[in-house]
Amino acid sequence: MRRLMLFAGGLALTAALAMSAQASDELLKMEKNSADWVSPTGNYANWRYSELDQINKDNVGDLQVAWTFSTGVLRGHEGNPLKIGNMLYLHTPFPNKVIALDLDQDGKIVWQYEPKQDPDVIPVMCCDTVNRGVAYGDGKIFLHQADTTLVALDAKTGEVVWKAVNGEPKKGETGTSAPMVVKDKVFVGISGGEFGVQCHVTAYDINTGKRVWRGYSVGPDDQLLVDPEKTTSLGKPIGKDSSLKTWEGDQWKIGGGCTWGWLAYDPDLDLMYYGSGNPSTWNPKQRPGDNKWSMTIWARNPDTGVAKWVYQMTPHDEWDYDGINEMILADLKIDGKDVPTLVHFDRNGLGYTLNRDTGALLVANKYDPAVNWTTGVDMDPKSKTYGRPAVVTAKSTEAGGEDTNTTDICPAALGSKDQQPAAYSPKTGIFYVPTNHVCMDYEPFRVSYTAGQPYVGATLSMYPPKGEENMGNFIAWDATKGEIVWSKPEQFSVWSGALATAGDVVFYGTLEGYLKAVDPETGDELYKFKTPSGIIGNVMTYEHNGKQYVAVYSGIGGWAGIGLAAGLTDPQAGLGAVGGYAGLRQYTNLGGQLTVFALPSN
Amino acid sequence: MRRLMLFAGGLALTAALAMSAQASDELLKMEKNSADWVSPTGNYANWRYSELDQINKDNVGDLQVAWTFSTGVLRGHEGNPLKIGNMLYLHTPFPNKVIALDLDQDGKIVWQYEPKQDPDVIPVMCCDTVNRGVAYGDGKIFLHQADTTLVALDAKTGEVVWKAVNGEPKKGETGTSAPMVVKDKVFVGISGGEFGVQCHVTAYDINTGKRVWRGYSVGPDDQLLVDPEKTTSLGKPIGKDSSLKTWEGDQWKIGGGCTWGWLAYDPDLDLMYYGSGNPSTWNPKQRPGDNKWSMTIWARNPDTGVAKWVYQMTPHDEWDYDGINEMILADLKIDGKDVPTLVHFDRNGLGYTLNRDTGALLVANKYDPAVNWTTGVDMDPKSKTYGRPAVVTAKSTEAGGEDTNTTDICPAALGSKDQQPAAYSPKTGIFYVPTNHVCMDYEPFRVSYTAGQPYVGATLSMYPPKGEENMGNFIAWDATKGEIVWSKPEQFSVWSGALATAGDVVFYGTLEGYLKAVDPETGDELYKFKTPSGIIGNVMTYEHNGKQYVAVYSGIGGWAGIGLAAGLTDPQAGLGAVGGYAGLRQYTNLGGQLTVFALPSN
Repeated sequence: MRRLMLFAGGLALTAALAMSAQASDELLKMEKNSADWVSPTGNYANWRYSELDQINKDNVGDLQVAWTFSTGVLRGHEGNPLKIGNMLYLHTPFPNKVIALDLDQDGKIVWQYEPKQDPDVIPVMCCDTVNRGVAYGDGKIFLHQADTTLVALDAKTGEVVWKAVNGEPKKGETGTSAPMVVKDKVFVGISGGEFGVQCHVTAYDINTGKRVWRGYSVGPDDQLLVDPEKTTSLGKPIGKDSSLKTWEGDQWKIGGGCTWGWLAYDPDLDLMYYGSGNPSTWNPKQRPGDNKWSMTIWARNPDTGVAKWVYQMTPHDEWDYDGINEMILADLKIDGKDVPTLVHFDRNGLGYTLNRDTGALLVANKYDPAVNWTTGVDMDPKSKTYGRPAVVTAKSTEAGGEDTNTTDICPAALGSKDQQPAAYSPKTGIFYVPTNHVCMDYEPFRVSYTAGQPYVGATLSMYPPKGEENMGNFIAWDATKGEIVWSKPEQFSVWSGALATAGDVVFYGTLEGYLKAVDPETGDELYKFKTPSGIIGNVMTYEHNGKQYVAVYSGIGGWAGIGLAAGLTDPQAGLGAVGGYAGLRQYTNLGGQLTVFALPSN
Repeated sequence: MRRLMLFAGGLALTAALAMSAQASDELLKMEKNSADWVSPTGNYANWRYSELDQINKDNVGDLQVAWTFSTGVLRGHEGNPLKIGNMLYLHTPFPNKVIALDLDQDGKIVWQYEPKQDPDVIPVMCCDTVNRGVAYGDGKIFLHQADTTLVALDAKTGEVVWKAVNGEPKKGETGTSAPMVVKDKVFVGISGGEFGVQCHVTAYDINTGKRVWRGYSVGPDDQLLVDPEKTTSLGKPIGKDSSLKTWEGDQWKIGGGCTWGWLAYDPDLDLMYYGSGNPSTWNPKQRPGDNKWSMTIWARNPDTGVAKWVYQMTPHDEWDYDGINEMILADLKIDGKDVPTLVHFDRNGLGYTLNRDTGALLVANKYDPAVNWTTGVDMDPKSKTYGRPAVVTAKSTEAGGEDTNTTDICPAALGSKDQQPAAYSPKTGIFYVPTNHVCMDYEPFRVSYTAGQPYVGATLSMYPPKGEENMGNFIAWDATKGEIVWSKPEQFSVWSGALATAGDVVFYGTLEGYLKAVDPETGDELYKFKTPSGIIGNVMTYEHNGKQYVAVYSGIGGWAGIGLAAGLTDPQAGLGAVGGYAGLRQYTNLGGQLTVFALPSN
């Protein structure tokens, strides 16, 4: 763009603005076409909801597998394909292939992009070599590779349009998250909370790959992209050095706050949303203070990156309750008023409802009854601890001191929910949430920082809540009241993303490999099918030639499946997950497949 | 057994005989129970036919995927699972996992055997790291590992009962074939024809793993296990040194004749059958003579190993027309007489029918009209060249001399058919044959032998016959007349094994990944489904809880798919296969899945 302007001046500027508007408008228009699935999250609001209703509550029991496709890659397959027109765009874990299939040609492979990446990035990926998907915008497919290369591919040919380098794997910075396109920019976060990375979200120009802005989660104000006077937290300006004040010395420079969750955008408020992750290290003794703005919900202006508001959910984290989970933007009626809300199911086990315009806290309740590290959030605006969770001392991993094992903390570090995204049905007004029902022992220890080396500082083991056997529940949640509507137990964590549809069906996958369909009102199971491998992908739906399809990746892995994915057997390996999920070996093997379902043709 | 006899004399001998009878009788009984699929080949006669008819010509179009299972291993998946009672036994390519699934528990993994093998065996496997399956007998599952370890596993627990070492991978000897159990012995062949291995079939005691006999394909009479006076070829005794006389010097010691095809057994004649492979090297100039008994059909006594008869199909091979393809034992009416026949579709493009008792040659006709290296087999018993194919000089790779490229030879080295097994329906009396429709250029060159190094001696490239596009046909064959009944073109070689059923349906898979069902009378397509990856496995069927299922492995690879499987791109790589099959990249990716089909439950 800039080069054009040098030659053509004002005229080119007008054209550039027009193009920007076009790229944004195109996506908003496309996400309203329920035949497509244009955004990794279904829409900018992260609903994972479809208006398609050909497959419905009454006929979903007749669902069949229409076709299947192997990605050719094993290990954890998070995310979902995009569907745009006649094309399906698949992605894989490392080596992060992108595969374009033509639905008009029975799924023929039109192009396949397989980047050459240094395999040394693999051991720097904390919890499997996952990738959560590609984004579309302006005729390009955007992929954030494991090695942090952000690449723009021509959607028609797969040719590389541009590449940008978002981080340094040698420092433990890796790419796992799906980008998001807004206007003329593509946004992407970064992973590396277990390697002492100072994390950020970065905006790149969709046409050139040039970096436009970068907002850090922790650090000085100019790195945070905050305005001390205008950026607010719970309605009040955050003030100068809001982050630096809450860290000891230079610890913030290796302070984490990673940004590998799903991004959201509200075109009316013109704000983008995401959560920042755990402060590092996992040993809380080594980082006194609130460690702002780790564990925080962020609302930023997409053009400038400047934050409008922030809200820290878990000040001074002691459990790795990484706040990266997605923000779902829904307009709900609360106490009789229409509120533009943001609903968020945090790793810490609390389901939050906020006013997404102002950042006002409306609801913060446990969405798993097992949660025991807190008695709840102080909801009194007049209180000094307003908005803070009250920590149960017996479950404080810092209270016991270093090298002391605190037991039976619920949830475990992977949270009552992790990256597995929830769905929201505007038809029922209910949120459908895949959850973990897992507790842990946690023993913090002193750790020293070396760039690119694990900087964890705690030993964990995970298991189901005492006296229970199921390690997961699929739940329905009323975000206006903060109440569980129904809860369907699952043997293992539900690590798959949910899909709600206008056909009155909600879908999700299980770690054993089942795709399940349930009644949105009751949670009653309407259909199940055993796919080739455990499901940690997100269910999506599309229409092609007048027929509705439901599709999901199989491919066991992710944090919950890391034992299988990486061949680990020590129960405490995989940051404590291997032991808890050891039983998975009886149900599934590594895979990497897309299974596509449809009703029989009669 | 032998050790027992030393101590207990006659009593133990009686017990041993009783046990032998039991193990053999059990299998014969089990293979008649169409609910099971107890032998890798369907039955001892290699029919790949099932009496099950719940899925039939009229309803096969309604077939659905019942469930799916990922093996967790990529690369070529040849062979098929066994089904015994409530158990399904799966196998994989290297590292040769065996996975036992309980159908009564929705396919739960009961046990999994994953041997630790030296990965140095991988480059010694000429044409992908395939394994063609396990055998059952006497409560044990027998696996021939890539590293030639023959292992007996307890079918209930997966525990190792015994192990035997069948060869030396350091010399290029590898295990790819399925064993066969007869009486108290388990038989297994060996691979390594491209590494100058002197190949053999070996019998091991099923109870102890002790070697009982070993019969070589080439070499002195005592190694061949032949009786110069009693072992016949085309009705005449083979005489003394029948093999040695046909080799120059010690070339036989690195003379090939490998034995990695499917084994067969006739309990009434008490004879086992198999084919021996190409003489090595592929450069015919380096091994003057007929190179007996490479390229030969063998009929051996299973107790002693002594051959009753042999028939060499391609004396002095010049094209790698490896004679390992399976022998199908059928009782056919020929010229009005009931004949115990053996039907064999050789790599050389000729379909043979022999009297399996006497080895008399009845039919030898081209089963692909493209075959051009021979004008046919001399069928005149009085002729000096009786039983020999007449070689077309223009297609002789030796006639041109070393370092000369002979072009447009049909079939290519991988034959008009390779390991992909045909099916025989006793209901129609017809054979259903997956074929390659591929030609080649072949340039022999001088090569010197180093143990464990490739000893190939020819450069190849493969392509469809001139002026044609399809590289495969699925055909129906009348073995009494040597005639094609119908031929269904496929874009690529049909590298999957066929299944015929009493439901008047024939199944096979394609390299693009489709499972197809056709009408046995016409070849008309009745059903197709796109499985996750290209199919080189063999279709099998079983019944569980009164319901018929059809199952097949996906997992592109094998010789035809080696380009994809091993990531090769040079067109002449993969012994010439990569170029011919380059188009596969548009259809499929690596995989490793079992897809199980059934009719809808109504």
